[in-house]
Amino acid sequence: MTTESAGRRSVPVDGAAFLASMRELSLIGATAGGGVHRLAASAEDGQARDWLAQWLRQRGFTIKVDAIGNLFGVLEWRRGAPYVLCGSHLDSQPQAGKLDGAYGVVAAAHAADRLRLQAEANGEVPAFNVAVVSWTNEEGARFQPSLLGSSVYSKTMTAADALAVCDEAGISVGEALTAIGYAGRDQAPWPPAVCAEIHIEQGHALEDAGRSIGLVAFNWAAHKYEIEVIGRQAHTGPTPMAERRDALLGASYLIVAARELVEQLAPRLLHTSVARLVTRPNSPNSVTSQATLFLELRSPDPEVLVDAERLLFEAFERVRQNTGVAISCPKVVRRGVRHFDAEGLELARASAHALGLECMELATVAGQDAIAVGTIVPSVMLFVPSFLGIGHHEEEHTDDALLVSGVDMLTEVLARLCAGDLRSTVRGDLTARVAR
Amino acid sequence: MTTESAGRRSVPVDGAAFLASMRELSLIGATAGGGVHRLAASAEDGQARDWLAQWLRQRGFTIKVDAIGNLFGVLEWRRGAPYVLCGSHLDSQPQAGKLDGAYGVVAAAHAADRLRLQAEANGEVPAFNVAVVSWTNEEGARFQPSLLGSSVYSKTMTAADALAVCDEAGISVGEALTAIGYAGRDQAPWPPAVCAEIHIEQGHALEDAGRSIGLVAFNWAAHKYEIEVIGRQAHTGPTPMAERRDALLGASYLIVAARELVEQLAPRLLHTSVARLVTRPNSPNSVTSQATLFLELRSPDPEVLVDAERLLFEAFERVRQNTGVAISCPKVVRRGVRHFDAEGLELARASAHALGLECMELATVAGQDAIAVGTIVPSVMLFVPSFLGIGHHEEEHTDDALLVSGVDMLTEVLARLCAGDLRSTVRGDLTARVAR
Repeated sequence: MTTESAGRRSVPVDGAAFLASMRELSLIGATAGGGVHRLAASAEDGQARDWLAQWLRQRGFTIKVDAIGNLFGVLEWRRGAPYVLCGSHLDSQPQAGKLDGAYGVVAAAHAADRLRLQAEANGEVPAFNVAVVSWTNEEGARFQPSLLGSSVYSKTMTAADALAVCDEAGISVGEALTAIGYAGRDQAPWPPAVCAEIHIEQGHALEDAGRSIGLVAFNWAAHKYEIEVIGRQAHTGPTPMAERRDALLGASYLIVAARELVEQLAPRLLHTSVARLVTRPNSPNSVTSQATLFLELRSPDPEVLVDAERLLFEAFERVRQNTGVAISCPKVVRRGVRHFDAEGLELARASAHALGLECMELATVAGQDAIAVGTIVPSVMLFVPSFLGIGHHEEEHTDDALLVSGVDMLTEVLARLCAGDLRSTVRGDLTARVAR
Repeated sequence: MTTESAGRRSVPVDGAAFLASMRELSLIGATAGGGVHRLAASAEDGQARDWLAQWLRQRGFTIKVDAIGNLFGVLEWRRGAPYVLCGSHLDSQPQAGKLDGAYGVVAAAHAADRLRLQAEANGEVPAFNVAVVSWTNEEGARFQPSLLGSSVYSKTMTAADALAVCDEAGISVGEALTAIGYAGRDQAPWPPAVCAEIHIEQGHALEDAGRSIGLVAFNWAAHKYEIEVIGRQAHTGPTPMAERRDALLGASYLIVAARELVEQLAPRLLHTSVARLVTRPNSPNSVTSQATLFLELRSPDPEVLVDAERLLFEAFERVRQNTGVAISCPKVVRRGVRHFDAEGLELARASAHALGLECMELATVAGQDAIAVGTIVPSVMLFVPSFLGIGHHEEEHTDDALLVSGVDMLTEVLARLCAGDLRSTVRGDLTARVAR
């Protein structure tokens, strides 16, 4: 199980065991199309959590579940020492792929367990403790907003607010967590020292460049708007066209306008979408009285988003005048461009070089738990390639060899982070930072 | 209770009793906004049916419920004689008005009961039997298509097909009727001789002209399309815009195109709408893979609809090319312009004159049960004014005096129909017609 190298015993990556774990987990919420359907705090999410907790417990990790249901597997090597958090999320989009989130959680579990074996083999006590983590509701599919668990951990959202969020059926996060037995009462591992996450890219930059590891340098800025369009219910038959105030028509003009921003402003530097739309009464014969749109604008250039938002609000005015609907925007979340810790990036690059892995820097367009936690401690984010860049789809795929080299890479990064190689984590400014 | 006139005892309209009945019924499924929410075969629809059945039973009507849940209150004056059907529907749109459908059912019940009292007072036996009816799922809000009960009665749809229709939660009409105790086993009253219905106008032609009764001469043609837009699920973040196939974007272009047909073709002679849209996965972060639209085109001129359909299908092609989605149209229902029985129209006009009511001919833009039943027997359709033309909205309103004069009018029409005054019903071609 261990190999000798320069007098120190090193445990090699066990790719077969890792892939077996992925196969086991993928059975939970498996879909006919080869993916998984494991919405946050659903029965399937509960089963996936049970599976992870059992795997960790069997290897000596202590399981902790905090108030928002974040699931931690803790190795407390030094009592009271800060934690290296390492993980991702077990929840999925509807009818989604097996890797998004799940890969990062299982990779973290295997990486941390390998560190455990290595420490035992060498009689070492790492400088920092480690906590494998599955964050609650990263996806934001069943419950909006996304990144719920990691945002509560990072104190940008209160647990009370997060627990009160309801799905379309009116079930709150708190009720759903209680139903699956994950409304926890444990204190989350604290203080954090640093956070690490590995994820599939969900784009094809790595594949195009032929690299096996991506070092995430920064995240795109994103604006997320919840938009209310208010019309007036009326009969779709006799009501004269000129007297209608059709909220679905208004919403449709906005959806088209959002798409057209791309060519208007910055092809390739602006991504726009409306992917969730809720309408009332949604009857074939009654003009829509209310439409709620979830509209996203994303760019690596914050100035582009400023322009896009201005044009979007101008579109509101145009649509109001054309259709007679009222439009408001009760919720806006604006996430800025944020650079990942520069020293962490260099530590990751050095890790890749040590392992002989071809890496490159890139950005994450998607939101990630490591971005949320990165607001309180340095975070290191790694990508493995995604076949054809497929994401949020059952056909999501990464070759086994790439998945395993990603686990090896994460283990190396985790070893260095636990050893205290990231100077910023031991500079003494940690307490001040996490208390902000 | 009865008055003497030319040796024959006539029972006057009891407006207070009628309005009291409307008030009682309006309590069932009452909404905070002053309307009712009484979806087809819901618990509230069940309570409304119970209320109606009890009212009729107490007055000597025999209750029959057929396989599709149509509820009949029968007065069989002559064994085996054909039936004059008179009624409308108790189901409502979501958060809708108190009058749509309900008015026609309660008016029919009060009119038929007045005929009963009159026949008893005069020792008369009318030529035809009468059946008060509440047709199942006229609205098509919970279950598509609309006019379900009257279409099964008229044999344009089988009971088996209608019972198998499911709502959004996957509950079938059959299951829903069983749950409320209205999955009937009775033979519907047969053969029909003629059908009469009174309804609120849901437009403002009568109000504009200052008339109290509308004689419906014909119905607008209507095309109803169920359209499937198929895209591909993908991440709304990293997926390059050019690689997306967004079904919601495709649907939005179609919704806008449908609206623009009006000015392109025939303002005032074309009504278009999309009022029901179902999307999957409907998650803020996953590009929509599937959108189902319910699109309607209506016109008094069938040629306009031919042109509109051609332009709509051209829009399909344009949207396919612009967005990469696939578009299909698995269900189309085309309802032609149909003129109501000319002799029935004259009978109604004579009835109005006899009562001194100001009437005018007009068209119905909306679908009505009397149109469905009118495919097998003559039907007579009456309107009362709608305040400001409001329909499918909680604020739907008609003044009490107008409601009561409508009941008086319906009673007069029903008396003439039951007496056999409509020659076409006794011409002997009835059996051939209803058997087709």
